Amino acid sequence: MSEDDAAATDREKNPRPLRTDLRPIVEAVRDADAAAFVAVGDRFDGDLRYLSRFAGPDRPSALVVVPTGEATADTVGRAVLCAPALFGEQAEREFVASARASHESGSGGPTDDEVGFHDGVAREVRTERVGDRAGERAAAAAADLAGGASGDGEGVLTPASIPHDAAVYLERAGFGPASTEAVATARARKTPAERDRIRRVQRATVAGIARAEAVLADCEAVDEGSEETAAGRADDDRRPPLRWDGEPLTTERLRREVNAALAARGVRDAGNTVIGAGPSAADLHYVGDDPVRPGETVLLDVSPRGPDGYYGDATRTFVVDGDGGWARRAYVAVEAAREAALDEVEPGVPAKTVHGEAAAELAAYGFDPNAGEGEAGFTHGTGHGVGVSLHERPSLSGAGELRPGHVVTVEPGVYDPDIGGVRLEDLVLVTEDGYEILAEHPFGIAPRERE
Amino acid sequence: MSEDDAAATDREKNPRPLRTDLRPIVEAVRDADAAAFVAVGDRFDGDLRYLSRFAGPDRPSALVVVPTGEATADTVGRAVLCAPALFGEQAEREFVASARASHESGSGGPTDDEVGFHDGVAREVRTERVGDRAGERAAAAAADLAGGASGDGEGVLTPASIPHDAAVYLERAGFGPASTEAVATARARKTPAERDRIRRVQRATVAGIARAEAVLADCEAVDEGSEETAAGRADDDRRPPLRWDGEPLTTERLRREVNAALAARGVRDAGNTVIGAGPSAADLHYVGDDPVRPGETVLLDVSPRGPDGYYGDATRTFVVDGDGGWARRAYVAVEAAREAALDEVEPGVPAKTVHGEAAAELAAYGFDPNAGEGEAGFTHGTGHGVGVSLHERPSLSGAGELRPGHVVTVEPGVYDPDIGGVRLEDLVLVTEDGYEILAEHPFGIAPRERE
Repeated sequence: MSEDDAAATDREKNPRPLRTDLRPIVEAVRDADAAAFVAVGDRFDGDLRYLSRFAGPDRPSALVVVPTGEATADTVGRAVLCAPALFGEQAEREFVASARASHESGSGGPTDDEVGFHDGVAREVRTERVGDRAGERAAAAAADLAGGASGDGEGVLTPASIPHDAAVYLERAGFGPASTEAVATARARKTPAERDRIRRVQRATVAGIARAEAVLADCEAVDEGSEETAAGRADDDRRPPLRWDGEPLTTERLRREVNAALAARGVRDAGNTVIGAGPSAADLHYVGDDPVRPGETVLLDVSPRGPDGYYGDATRTFVVDGDGGWARRAYVAVEAAREAALDEVEPGVPAKTVHGEAAAELAAYGFDPNAGEGEAGFTHGTGHGVGVSLHERPSLSGAGELRPGHVVTVEPGVYDPDIGGVRLEDLVLVTEDGYEILAEHPFGIAPRERE
Repeated sequence: MSEDDAAATDREKNPRPLRTDLRPIVEAVRDADAAAFVAVGDRFDGDLRYLSRFAGPDRPSALVVVPTGEATADTVGRAVLCAPALFGEQAEREFVASARASHESGSGGPTDDEVGFHDGVAREVRTERVGDRAGERAAAAAADLAGGASGDGEGVLTPASIPHDAAVYLERAGFGPASTEAVATARARKTPAERDRIRRVQRATVAGIARAEAVLADCEAVDEGSEETAAGRADDDRRPPLRWDGEPLTTERLRREVNAALAARGVRDAGNTVIGAGPSAADLHYVGDDPVRPGETVLLDVSPRGPDGYYGDATRTFVVDGDGGWARRAYVAVEAAREAALDEVEPGVPAKTVHGEAAAELAAYGFDPNAGEGEAGFTHGTGHGVGVSLHERPSLSGAGELRPGHVVTVEPGVYDPDIGGVRLEDLVLVTEDGYEILAEHPFGIAPRERE
C-alpha cells in the first residue's frame, strides 16, 4: 500500500516543490461576491503559513487575495503579502519565487518576469516599515487591489481568528469582514508535495521513538534487596526507578534523548514531546520530570515540526520488566482498537465512524469508551488532521467524510489515573482506496533495541 | 555586577516560583472604568501565557479578569481561565495551584481552600466542552463575573490582537472591546522568578554556541592544491568548504549540532537557530544549507525556549583560518559598538539612546548605520526585549526609558551581502544601577574549544 521505497528515498532527497494553490481562495471570494480575502497573522498562524509559505517572524504579516476582473486561462487572481520590515527578501523567495510556474525547470528558461504562477494567481510582496500595523497595510492593499471599497460594507472574507484590530482597519476602509471556511477546507487535503514533507518529519518522529525505546531496552532494574531500593520504596509499594547510564532514569532524561535525536535529524521537538511514566502516563499532556519504574507504563508521544512547517505525530507505550496485569490488558485492547479504527479508513467514510469503531472495541475489552478527564478509560478522540498545525481538519470525532489526501492520526488509548496509560498512535494518509501508514514503527510492549 | 555564583547555581536547581501579579490588570480595568479584561489565544499567544502561566494546546483559551466590587487587603479581583476540553487538570495546576499564597510553604499548612492568592486575585478554571468557542465562553464569563453587561457597550479591555470572533462575541454580549497596553507594559519588567528562567535558558543558549564553536575549532581546511579543491573552486574564487568528522561542513550540519546540544540541556531550539556562512551570514534569517568555508564569516544566532516558556538569545560570529580584511574590520567595529551600547544601559536612559550610540560607533568605523534591507552596513535595530515572546518590549529603537527588570538583547552587527556578516549579541538585565549580562560567553573571531 505504501509507495515504492526507492521513489520514497528519492523524494526524501528531492521533495516535490511546495506550493499552495490559491485558486480555491479566489473561488471562495467569487462565490461570496466579496471583494477580497484577507488573512493576518504571525509565524505561529497556520493559515498564513499554509497560504503564503512564508516562515516569517513573530510580528504579523498580512495576505490579500483578489480575483482578477476578467479571468483568463493564465491569470485568475492577484495576491499581495504585506511582510514585516527586514523580511522582504525572505518573503520574495518563499512566497513569490517558489510559486513561479517555472520553478521546477531550472535555469535557461524565460526570466521571472516572463513566466506566470503555477496556479494563475500573480504574487507580489509589499514590505512594511518598522511599526506599521499589518492590518492597516492589509486594508490598504485590499482597497488598492479590489479597486477601492464601495463604502457600504463590501464583503472581505477572513479566517474567523483574524486579529480584531485588523478587522477594525478593514471596517474603517469600508469593508465588511465575514469569516470563511475555505482555508481550513483546503488545508485538510494534502498535495503530493505536502505528503513528502509529512513523510519526512514522520520518519524523524519514529526515529525519536526508537531512541527512547533503545534507552528503555538498555535500562537496568535495581536489585530490590539493596539499600538503595529500600529508600526508593519508603513511601509506597512501587519498585525503585530504572537506572540508565549510571543514573536513575526519569521522563526528563528520556525527553532530552528523544529531542536530541530529533535535532540530529533536522526537525524540532516543538515542545510537544510528552512522556509520562506510571500514573503520569495517564496525563495526556505530561511534560514534567517523573522517575521511570519497572513494571509501569512509559508513554511516549512525539510530535516534532519539520523545516517546511509540517508536523509529525506518533505514540508508543512500553513497560520494562512487566508482569502483565492492567498494562498488558490495556495494550491488547488498544492494539485491537487500532486495528478496528484502521479498518474503517477509506474515502467516503464518515470521519466519526473511525472513532466509533475504536471506542466500541475498547468497550468490548471492558474499558469505558466515554470516560471524562481524569477518569479511567478512553478519554479523548481517536484522531485529528495534521499539517502545518499539529491539530487541524478533519477530526475523527467530527462531521464530514474522509477524503483522499487527508492525513490523520489514529490514536486510541486507555488510562487509569492511579496506574498509567497506554496509547498507540500512527499517522495515516487516506488514499484513493484505503490508507497508507506514514513511517511505520513496530509494536510490542517490551522495549527492544531496533536495528 | 552579576549575582553570586553559588546563589545562581542554587537558583538553577530551585528557581523561585513563577507567578504573575494580576493586580496591574485589575487596576487598568478600574482606571478605564471598564467591566473586565479579556484575553483569548492559544499556546502561541505570549500575553495569555504570561497572564495565566498555562501552557495549553493549539486550541484557544480565554482569560477574564474583573475587579471585586469592594477591594480588601486580601481580595482585589477575580480571574477565570476558560480552558479547552481535556486541559482542566493542567490549567488547575498551572493557573490556580501555582498562584496560591502558600505555594512556597510546602505541606502542613492550611488547605488550598483556606489560603488566598499571592496577589489577591482569586483564580478559577472553567473547562470548555469540545467545540466550544473560547470567545463565546469568555463573553459569558465576563458577563457572569461583572454582574452582567449594561447593554450599552460597557468597556472590556483586551489586547489589540484578540481574535475578531472573540471581539464579536463580546459585542453581542453587550460589551465594547477597547485595547489596552497594560499587559505589554507589565511583561517588560521581569520579576526575580522570571530572571531565574531567563538565566537558565540563556546558559543553555551559550552552551549551544560553545558546541558550534568547538565544531568550528575542530574543522580542517582542505589542501588547496588537491583535485577536490579544484572542483570546489570551479565557479568562483571561494576556498573549498571546511571538513568536519570526515564530511564537508554545512550550516545545516552545524545547526543540528547546536540544536542537539540545546535538547540535551532541556531547552528547545524553537526553529530559531539562524546560521549563515559567507554571504548567507548577511541574511538576518538564514535557515538554509550552505557550505562553511575558511576565511568567511560564520554567524550563529541562537534563541531557544525554556520549559517555562522564556526565551534566550545570543549571537557570535567566527572565521576559521581568516586573513583579516573585511571580517576583521567588521568584528572590531561591532565589538566597539557593543561596548558603546552597553555603556548607555541603565535605568532612566531613553531606550533609543542605546541604539543611537551603537549606530554612531559603527559609523565612526566607516559602516553605514542606516543601511536598508539588502544593503551593506547596519540594517537592523540594536536590541529588543525578551520574555515569553522572543521579541517584546522594550525596543532599543523605540520610545520610553529603560527601567530595572527590563531584559533586552544588545546586538549590533554589520553586513555586506557580497561577503558576509558580523553580529555579537548578549542578553542583558537592566539592574538598579546598570546592567548584568545573563550567561556570558567569550569573544574572539577565531573559534576555540572552550572549557
